Amino acid sequence: MNHLLPQRILVAPSGFKESLDSAAVAQAIAAGVRRALPGAVVKAVPIADGGEGTAQTLAEATGGRLVPLRVTGPVGDPVDSHFALLGGEARGTAVVEMAAAAGLRLVPCDRRDPGRTTSRGVGELIAAAIDAGARRILVGCGDSGTSDGGMGALQGLGARVLDADGEPVPPGGDHLGRVARLDLTGLHPALAERSVDITLALNPHNVLTGARGVARVFGPQKGATPEQVEEMSAGFERWAAVLERDGLTRSGLDRGGFPGDVPGLAGLAGDGPGGGAVDLATGPGTGASGGLGAGLAAVGATLMPRFEAILDSGLAGFDLDALLHGADLVITAEGAIDFQTPRGKVPAEVARRAARQGVPVVALAGTLGRGARDVHDIGIDAIASIVPIPMTLQEAVDDGERLLIEAAERLMRTIIFGASMAATRLSPRPAW
Amino acid sequence: MNHLLPQRILVAPSGFKESLDSAAVAQAIAAGVRRALPGAVVKAVPIADGGEGTAQTLAEATGGRLVPLRVTGPVGDPVDSHFALLGGEARGTAVVEMAAAAGLRLVPCDRRDPGRTTSRGVGELIAAAIDAGARRILVGCGDSGTSDGGMGALQGLGARVLDADGEPVPPGGDHLGRVARLDLTGLHPALAERSVDITLALNPHNVLTGARGVARVFGPQKGATPEQVEEMSAGFERWAAVLERDGLTRSGLDRGGFPGDVPGLAGLAGDGPGGGAVDLATGPGTGASGGLGAGLAAVGATLMPRFEAILDSGLAGFDLDALLHGADLVITAEGAIDFQTPRGKVPAEVARRAARQGVPVVALAGTLGRGARDVHDIGIDAIASIVPIPMTLQEAVDDGERLLIEAAERLMRTIIFGASMAATRLSPRPAW
Repeated sequence: MNHLLPQRILVAPSGFKESLDSAAVAQAIAAGVRRALPGAVVKAVPIADGGEGTAQTLAEATGGRLVPLRVTGPVGDPVDSHFALLGGEARGTAVVEMAAAAGLRLVPCDRRDPGRTTSRGVGELIAAAIDAGARRILVGCGDSGTSDGGMGALQGLGARVLDADGEPVPPGGDHLGRVARLDLTGLHPALAERSVDITLALNPHNVLTGARGVARVFGPQKGATPEQVEEMSAGFERWAAVLERDGLTRSGLDRGGFPGDVPGLAGLAGDGPGGGAVDLATGPGTGASGGLGAGLAAVGATLMPRFEAILDSGLAGFDLDALLHGADLVITAEGAIDFQTPRGKVPAEVARRAARQGVPVVALAGTLGRGARDVHDIGIDAIASIVPIPMTLQEAVDDGERLLIEAAERLMRTIIFGASMAATRLSPRPAW
Repeated sequence: MNHLLPQRILVAPSGFKESLDSAAVAQAIAAGVRRALPGAVVKAVPIADGGEGTAQTLAEATGGRLVPLRVTGPVGDPVDSHFALLGGEARGTAVVEMAAAAGLRLVPCDRRDPGRTTSRGVGELIAAAIDAGARRILVGCGDSGTSDGGMGALQGLGARVLDADGEPVPPGGDHLGRVARLDLTGLHPALAERSVDITLALNPHNVLTGARGVARVFGPQKGATPEQVEEMSAGFERWAAVLERDGLTRSGLDRGGFPGDVPGLAGLAGDGPGGGAVDLATGPGTGASGGLGAGLAAVGATLMPRFEAILDSGLAGFDLDALLHGADLVITAEGAIDFQTPRGKVPAEVARRAARQGVPVVALAGTLGRGARDVHDIGIDAIASIVPIPMTLQEAVDDGERLLIEAAERLMRTIIFGASMAATRLSPRPAW
């Protein structure tokens, strides 16, 4: 009957925020699977999504290291941050994580005003990574706490942002409406000289302005009034116009240094044929991380869908598609599975790639929230929670590893049970 | 591929204490199963275990009714209780639930002294059921809050318990050491005349005295000191001797009125051949419900393993073994699955009967506690928790129905997934 059971199981989870990083999640699930099915070959790979933990995950996976650095935090106070210098075949590449310098978690709850926070620390990290010798920089966008169009990041890289009187514009998206000019004379020379390739890993559906722009999509979610939304939107439009006019010349905006052709990138900002018209206002990804996409694209960065930037770039330390090709079953996971999961979360991406190769997918979650069943529609056949008993979120977070191991064992036992039933219960029972 | 999936699914759960009775649990699981597998025939039967909810479950299952009655509660204050008059083929039978008159839940937390609580209300319920016309009475033991050897129950049936001075002994197990004589002259005439059959549904492993007696097994668990344990034990020994001497004559202690031979009953108290020696001190079940087994056996009750008394007696409203005979899969459930589950809980009994017929078993639990994995050793192949997300026990209790429906759907989907894998993944994948 063993030939009916999965023999090669790929574990490809996200991290569980505030509990376990993706490598730890992957190892715990693999341990639980082996308990239930000791004979199986289990491979575990952590999937980074560009958000929190991305730098650490990629550093670990490639044998690189984290470089600690104190930078300007989102509310202006210094924060302890870091970037990664990757190892192995990815040597020469740095990973800068937006969340580690300007993430929402770095904004104190009583100062969560997206009109006033700055992405300056992201620029400082990029500059430091260049100075540390990196010639390729991956910027993970996600979990951002800013909405300044990348103005702060440009300032952190040496640019000056000036108003009509030639005075510096203060930090924060609230002031974008006053911007008159971008002065790149102080820009880090590696950017001006085009001697470094910067790629942003982001959600291309986020655009800076217009009806689907960040102000109109995220503003109301964050409590902005209709008037505030229109003001933000007008500020972004002005900012985009300034970036278009004062940014690095179009001819400099070729593709980043990532090898090979990547499907799905046509039309991304920064990705047009040399000299082609790139729209920094409504191009795909320009609105990522509160407009960081537009800001960095204006100084030559390439904007790339996040999973392609991370998984198809040679930076992940493994080839997910090749691993899927040989797998009988994939187990993915995320801290929360809910109605948002199909919208580009790690389990959705794993399911999408697995479907291309006909490999079935199941998922574990720290919490199964509203709409969790919707993931069946994107090819995740079965889901399970790791919570065995009523407990607080803090208890679940603190005991995450054990809960994951045990839940993975239960899930695997149930799958094995189903397979065994199919193998043994073919003959009909007597009438009921 | 449909022939690989279970077509006839039997749902046979316990109730979830303080949340849903067993009928509601059964219906919720069945609803979840149908969501995942609309084509299946799902039958749902509630399994009573003699504890809380037994009277209601059997009344509902047979089309009978509950009779409300105020009786003496375990600490002496009156409590609102009830017994069931069964319907259908079980007409003429009453069900008295020890938990409904002397259950632990009826003892206020600040008065939980098992040496002082009384089972009197159980006797009062039995007397009322007889007076209501019942000629067969099933007494469900379980969830008891007393430890008085059934002294209170006998008093509730009209017996007098006297000390050496001929004075009435006060209620509570603490006073058993002072008992000198049992006076049955006031006993309810139906018992004295043997015109009613009383059967206790209990755990036969509980005996009154000796090394495995209730005092030594449960005393330390309940916080009794070694001295208190020895005193309790001596009291039970004295009580057993008085019961043996002053109880109804041996010849009266034949089997109760339950039809047919029941396996596993040999040697149970009250079950010896007419006039045979029945040991009220160490006979199987004498220690059930704090010694209620011994007390009622002394006035002619039959002590029977609880699931046989309930499931093989024609009282349950269905024939579990016949249903199992035609099932492809059984789903059982209990509020908590843990190290205690294999020791005679509902899922263990369902698994035992399913194994006899080669039907596979899975289980859902409100909480998966310590040692839950041990249930795999008793033939439960897969287990799952109903908790989708960190939450309080109260939230889980309040939302039990929805959680059960959704968890049953997830469990069933996972089983179907395993079966589908077995059906489609037979061909080997390329090398990994």
